[in-house]
Amino acid sequence: MVNSVGIVGLGLIGGSLTRRLAHGQIEIVAWNHNDRPYAAARDAGIKCVDSLEQLAAAKPQVLFLCNPLRAMPEILERLAPVLDRNATVLSDVGSVKGMVRQQVENAGLGDCYVGAHPMAGNESSGFTASDPTIYDGALWVLTVNERTDYRRFLDVATLITESVGNRIIVLDDATHDRAAAMISHAPHAVSTALINQLTESSERNIAAALAAGAWRDMTRVGLTDPDRTRAMIEEDAQNVEVLLRDLANRLTLFADELHRSDDAALTRFFEQGQPFRDYKAGERAATNMADVQMKCTERRVLDIPDSEWRSVFLDSARRGEHVIRFIQPWRVEVETLSKI
Amino acid sequence: MVNSVGIVGLGLIGGSLTRRLAHGQIEIVAWNHNDRPYAAARDAGIKCVDSLEQLAAAKPQVLFLCNPLRAMPEILERLAPVLDRNATVLSDVGSVKGMVRQQVENAGLGDCYVGAHPMAGNESSGFTASDPTIYDGALWVLTVNERTDYRRFLDVATLITESVGNRIIVLDDATHDRAAAMISHAPHAVSTALINQLTESSERNIAAALAAGAWRDMTRVGLTDPDRTRAMIEEDAQNVEVLLRDLANRLTLFADELHRSDDAALTRFFEQGQPFRDYKAGERAATNMADVQMKCTERRVLDIPDSEWRSVFLDSARRGEHVIRFIQPWRVEVETLSKI
Repeated sequence: MVNSVGIVGLGLIGGSLTRRLAHGQIEIVAWNHNDRPYAAARDAGIKCVDSLEQLAAAKPQVLFLCNPLRAMPEILERLAPVLDRNATVLSDVGSVKGMVRQQVENAGLGDCYVGAHPMAGNESSGFTASDPTIYDGALWVLTVNERTDYRRFLDVATLITESVGNRIIVLDDATHDRAAAMISHAPHAVSTALINQLTESSERNIAAALAAGAWRDMTRVGLTDPDRTRAMIEEDAQNVEVLLRDLANRLTLFADELHRSDDAALTRFFEQGQPFRDYKAGERAATNMADVQMKCTERRVLDIPDSEWRSVFLDSARRGEHVIRFIQPWRVEVETLSKI
Repeated sequence: MVNSVGIVGLGLIGGSLTRRLAHGQIEIVAWNHNDRPYAAARDAGIKCVDSLEQLAAAKPQVLFLCNPLRAMPEILERLAPVLDRNATVLSDVGSVKGMVRQQVENAGLGDCYVGAHPMAGNESSGFTASDPTIYDGALWVLTVNERTDYRRFLDVATLITESVGNRIIVLDDATHDRAAAMISHAPHAVSTALINQLTESSERNIAAALAAGAWRDMTRVGLTDPDRTRAMIEEDAQNVEVLLRDLANRLTLFADELHRSDDAALTRFFEQGQPFRDYKAGERAATNMADVQMKCTERRVLDIPDSEWRSVFLDSARRGEHVIRFIQPWRVEVETLSKI
């Protein structure tokens, strides 16, 4: 049972996490790069300290790095000499995992690290925007590698399932970063490219006048802060590159099929994604049912072997299962809502 | 002043148009391929007839074809021998204009045709879903060519600005179809390709578990009926092909730039669409202002020369202007909200 948590960075994600945990029995200690949020944070029952060194000295059982990724190397460098590796598990909430683990290992902190990425957030930022409900129903990805200690993993995992009240899936860093590239980072580049295409056209004002729902949806993420979008894409550049080349190839092949009116190929193009459409339809049906007991969910118990625990969790994630609780340290209950 | 309108097809678009016009002084006569909507339409003050021939015999001043595009050739063939070309202007509401004009000309009805495409609609269909408010604030594209008669154009244009209460822009068919491909038809193919990419991945359930707002927005139009999407894309295939090849090229170039961490090129990619982001920010600012007089709009009056009236309207559309009213047949007031 984790009863103390440290937080670096009282922004939207870190601040909301402290607010959510502050309602429980857990002692929270936080440090922010400036003390602007401290008065409000103290009102919310959070102990705020003046330095990273003081935060490390408090020996929280789990320490979440919720700072911007660009600040990560410097913060890790300052933590390395003062963190009690036996007392504290180091985690984070970054949206890329391979790069963060590399930085953690560069700082010599790899042994006490378990990666984490909560699927939560909104367009706002800062502690004033923080809100514990942004974690309602959230899924966390925990990332592990062959050196991850299972007891440290359990500390972070049970904190999330029991104290934060969320679900988890367990991945390796590379799988996480490929998936994040597919559903977010590469689509951000596509959205930006669509905006560029219109902007360069001599008929841009005519096209914009005709724009309706399809255009609005396809370009929303390309309208957000392009510097933030660029940073996100560059942090996951290798995966984004692969996916964009694959997408460019799909679009070129489809253009060829359109050009020669290839009925069979066009049929394949429009049928290929049907499993995803069916999955979304199932998800909507489940969401619309008022009684949670009536949802088309499937629950089962997984035994986690001492060896190969990582691959059992990864296979579970591939099947579309979410870990909802630890029955014992080596037995977990998983749930599937619908799968593709 | 147009005081009688005929409607072919009482679906969402045609039905909503009859409901909107029925509130005015205009006599409406409608025909649908089956009489299911007739009871409700008659309750709404719409005269319904049993055949296309009866509809033509009613000699409406403007006859809008609001039928599905796939039914267009047969309906035109049936109308051709019975339509009084001197009494009636033929128009339509189809989402592609070049193909419809070709079909109209094949039926020998080109001389009395003015193309129209209202930027209105929603995900539903059928007369039961019809609602006059779907036209609130809508923009119509009217399409003309070198044979279009200005008095016939004026009938349709003033009907829209005065009786429907909407704005218009005037384009040639090719420009309309290129713009529609850019903001709707090609993005539908991109959305479908993104769904295909995820569906083919062995990590599809992991990716779907991580999916949030960006993925939801980028794939919404790809989730809609793929048969309808395919028809829409094939009806505008040449333009979609050109745009998809251009987009594939943009994505490949960006992947190359990512690969070599080309700072200057990446900066260009993320800066290129800034005029569109600024335009959207201006549009939002205008929309948020409660007092319409305070909006950053610019109104001016255009004189329409007897010759070259088409190019005056097309240039106006390129500048981002909307025609809001006809002061006289040869003088129009136009408004610009913001432009790119």
